[in-house]
Amino acid sequence: MIRVGIVGYGNVGRGAEAAVLQSKDMVLTGIFTRRAPETVHPYREDTPVYPMSVLEEGKVEVDVLLLCGGSATDLPVQTPELAKKYCVVDTFDTHARVPEHFANVDAAAKAGGTAAVISTGWDPGLFSMMRLLGTAILPEGSGDTFWGPGVSQGHSDAVRRIEGVADARQYTIPVQKTVSAVRKGESGFTARDKHTREVYVVLKEGADPQRVAQEIVTMPNYFEPYDTTVNFISAEEMAAEHAAMPHGGFVIRSGKLGEERQYSSLMEFKLELDSNPMFTGAIMAAFGRACYRLHEQGKAGCFTAFDVPLGLLSPLSAEELRANLL
Amino acid sequence: MIRVGIVGYGNVGRGAEAAVLQSKDMVLTGIFTRRAPETVHPYREDTPVYPMSVLEEGKVEVDVLLLCGGSATDLPVQTPELAKKYCVVDTFDTHARVPEHFANVDAAAKAGGTAAVISTGWDPGLFSMMRLLGTAILPEGSGDTFWGPGVSQGHSDAVRRIEGVADARQYTIPVQKTVSAVRKGESGFTARDKHTREVYVVLKEGADPQRVAQEIVTMPNYFEPYDTTVNFISAEEMAAEHAAMPHGGFVIRSGKLGEERQYSSLMEFKLELDSNPMFTGAIMAAFGRACYRLHEQGKAGCFTAFDVPLGLLSPLSAEELRANLL
Repeated sequence: MIRVGIVGYGNVGRGAEAAVLQSKDMVLTGIFTRRAPETVHPYREDTPVYPMSVLEEGKVEVDVLLLCGGSATDLPVQTPELAKKYCVVDTFDTHARVPEHFANVDAAAKAGGTAAVISTGWDPGLFSMMRLLGTAILPEGSGDTFWGPGVSQGHSDAVRRIEGVADARQYTIPVQKTVSAVRKGESGFTARDKHTREVYVVLKEGADPQRVAQEIVTMPNYFEPYDTTVNFISAEEMAAEHAAMPHGGFVIRSGKLGEERQYSSLMEFKLELDSNPMFTGAIMAAFGRACYRLHEQGKAGCFTAFDVPLGLLSPLSAEELRANLL
Repeated sequence: MIRVGIVGYGNVGRGAEAAVLQSKDMVLTGIFTRRAPETVHPYREDTPVYPMSVLEEGKVEVDVLLLCGGSATDLPVQTPELAKKYCVVDTFDTHARVPEHFANVDAAAKAGGTAAVISTGWDPGLFSMMRLLGTAILPEGSGDTFWGPGVSQGHSDAVRRIEGVADARQYTIPVQKTVSAVRKGESGFTARDKHTREVYVVLKEGADPQRVAQEIVTMPNYFEPYDTTVNFISAEEMAAEHAAMPHGGFVIRSGKLGEERQYSSLMEFKLELDSNPMFTGAIMAAFGRACYRLHEQGKAGCFTAFDVPLGLLSPLSAEELRANLL
């Protein structure tokens, strides 16, 4: 059994916990938190909850840690720090900082003789793998990634920071016309062509809806480059209709093959998820298994989804995989 | 540049040739054939065509061979034989014999210090990778693979062997109702539930259509387990309407996540191909690149799509992949 620890207990932490409990070859060693441990309530009562200090002191026997913190401030520090002592998997998703994060984690893991897999999850992660397959198999072509329909946590948070906003939920919606065009091999689409954004806002007492709406639709990077719709709703409606965290998306690659480039080929990968954090947790668990096995094979350093043989993600042996899934 | 040789020059051989010519990091060393070399006409006049004997004699410098023969009689002999001296990639697809083929090729490659990747292509191959990802990430769930709409070479050949048949083309068509049900997580479908078969036949002079149709629809394994439609057409119509070799299909995995299994998750991968052999050749070229690199890394033995880190399939470096595709 692979002994797994979960670091951080937000939505993704709970997703990772549920996935580890579903994995027949894993045992959940415990949850590690910066909060007061008694305030954390895992799915199962007998799952231990530890303060982070026990990890630093090396008091717990664990084969791999699933790091479920945020990419902005948690993971840039936590992943290299913990990789010095433990095999770790994270979901680092700040694109521009991947080379730096990779280098930091690689140095720490090599020094510690551990294996680390960074930037797992579905994007980066599973969708990255699909982009790689698409471009490797169809080198001449075009393609794009679409997200949604689904809730973007980052965009919801950005709206919540606006003065007068009590709560907010943002849905990212792919533009079907553009999806169809990309499938046909068309390219050159802008952010506005590809996705629309729908925002549901609960206002604080006395806040001006017109000012809030204006602040949302003109917000640089987050909303300005898109067609955005803002809807004001009650706190009750928010709780009743917008509590779930569905998400999904597609990775499309369209290419031309043959000496005359006369043969169109379309590869498309699609996700439809009731729960974004549950699926993210499930992918982390699979990469946790792979991380443990890389370490068992004597490998040390930082890896991404591009460096892991797929067979290591499955609990089945290589023989079983060849017999049953090839 | 990776020096690539193509062994066997049927439809897949031409697909592999076109793909190698499209790959900026590959050079086509030559085509190796059992036919008289002067009867083989590659896309480009300056591509050398050699008899197989030059490979046996080791007279040609080549980094990897793409073996484009058939699984019934060619590959079981050719892959282990050539793996003794060369890095090789094949498309072996006789499911029941994969363990035996793997063992033979593994022994030959280890003895020769070469790397071999077997059972590439899109199924087995790309679709196998999707089945593995589906079951590794969503261990509790169901799923299925559908093929088509597209031409099945094996089924077309089976009809051609019937007395009185001058030519035949068989289309495999997924049953949309079943595809929808599998997406919803339903399972337990029979061969008949999943696909229908449409056959186009050109009869020989004087052949009895009723007898031929009866022989087709009752043919065990090939047609008896399916609802099959037989259409008789002229040779002209066959040439005009059925010369292409389109294919495609989907791999669907539907699973439940969360401690209460309350979150549905759907993963779906789809292919739509104007030309089955061109796409098969493109995948072989990508695995040829991976095979060469495994050998460069000092690895020897037999590999499948489950054993190859995805990054090795791409001409980009690990740094470029992390920066551009992760």
